[in-house]
Amino acid sequence: NVGTDQEDVARIVAKYDFLAIPVVDHQRTLLGIVTVDDVLDVVTEESTEDFLRVSANIEEEEALDPGLTVWHRAVRRLPWLVGLLLGQLVAGNVIERFSNTLQTMYVLAFFMTAMAGGPGNAATQSLALVVRYLATREYRPRDFIRVVWREAQAGILVGLACGAVLAIAALVWQQSVLVALVVGPALALNITIATTFGSLVPVLVHRLGADPALASGPFITTLMDVISMSVYFGLASVLLFYLR
Amino acid sequence: NVGTDQEDVARIVAKYDFLAIPVVDHQRTLLGIVTVDDVLDVVTEESTEDFLRVSANIEEEEALDPGLTVWHRAVRRLPWLVGLLLGQLVAGNVIERFSNTLQTMYVLAFFMTAMAGGPGNAATQSLALVVRYLATREYRPRDFIRVVWREAQAGILVGLACGAVLAIAALVWQQSVLVALVVGPALALNITIATTFGSLVPVLVHRLGADPALASGPFITTLMDVISMSVYFGLASVLLFYLR
Repeated sequence: NVGTDQEDVARIVAKYDFLAIPVVDHQRTLLGIVTVDDVLDVVTEESTEDFLRVSANIEEEEALDPGLTVWHRAVRRLPWLVGLLLGQLVAGNVIERFSNTLQTMYVLAFFMTAMAGGPGNAATQSLALVVRYLATREYRPRDFIRVVWREAQAGILVGLACGAVLAIAALVWQQSVLVALVVGPALALNITIATTFGSLVPVLVHRLGADPALASGPFITTLMDVISMSVYFGLASVLLFYLR
Repeated sequence: NVGTDQEDVARIVAKYDFLAIPVVDHQRTLLGIVTVDDVLDVVTEESTEDFLRVSANIEEEEALDPGLTVWHRAVRRLPWLVGLLLGQLVAGNVIERFSNTLQTMYVLAFFMTAMAGGPGNAATQSLALVVRYLATREYRPRDFIRVVWREAQAGILVGLACGAVLAIAALVWQQSVLVALVVGPALALNITIATTFGSLVPVLVHRLGADPALASGPFITTLMDVISMSVYFGLASVLLFYLR
């Protein structure tokens, strides 16, 4: 049909190994054919598009054009980077709210790169899987719920394991049970949240037709920075209050 | 030729819109043909591979297999996440070395998410562009040097702009010229380094045939955490020493 999206056409041709498919209008009059080499161009283009958007929220035409000046290259990337920077400052603001906790237990700062980076990486893995899943399969709501639920379950296991590693690292490196009791559970919880978010956000974007930039790695990573810092310092404050 | 890589075959077919190309052995005896629908499968597969590897260092077969149990799903992702976690603890160790600086000027902690996240995002943008560039073009060393050099130049501009934004944020939020003088230049330098690394690492991996995981977003982001924290706290220590 004339109205069919090029990605869907590509999916059909790839699936059935057709060499060409006819294009018809609403009265089923033949308008022309789409050959497999047109499809090849589409597949290459769409996967590049997905790839650049999810990894870095860059549009293809701007990105791979060798004629673009350095100045234009920089200016086009800037709004996105500055936007994310403001998001990271929101995470910084969370830390400021807990500055008493941080000053009482400044050792917490040593684990901040792990507490921000770990959930970010877990979210990105889950995001990449789900985006690729959405791109290669036909839309069936039930599948997506199953995918998100599976990712969430995997997230709990991965979270518990990473939390245990960080707790052990805290015991060995800082020789503090209190620090281990903060960093371990906080990382476990954050990674579970991150894995779930990483799979949920692209599904929601796909369903609700929201801004695809929301399903990009850097966006989810920045969002996770805010959540991770809240969970981390929140838990630390509670434990400091009850255990000291 | 029999020995030609499937990606190169795909590139040739896509470029010239061939419907099929012959396969010959070293004596130029015809062994069979590769049709455009075989190529379509390869293109889909290879771009998924690139995408998952660069975003999250996940292998395709493990990733999209719906039959995989949650347990296996978690276990296969874990070594990579734990490896990165250890890398982030190295960054934490850098912070520990500067704990005097941090205690003197604990406000620096509020900018840590921006100082770790900003360069990470800049590196990922540049990485995604260059990996896609490598995948869609034929190998010409001179081009790659030009690509890295261009990214480095764009990095300087983007770095200066983001550094200025963060310095202004420091003046407005913390009302401290000293903090602005630390966070602005540190972010500018870190983003320049990140953009250059993000384009250089995949080119080096491609040339030297090194472990492709090194050209993944999470790896470069974690490496940048170590570098960023060193530059940030290093600069802070120097400024504190001279200006106080």
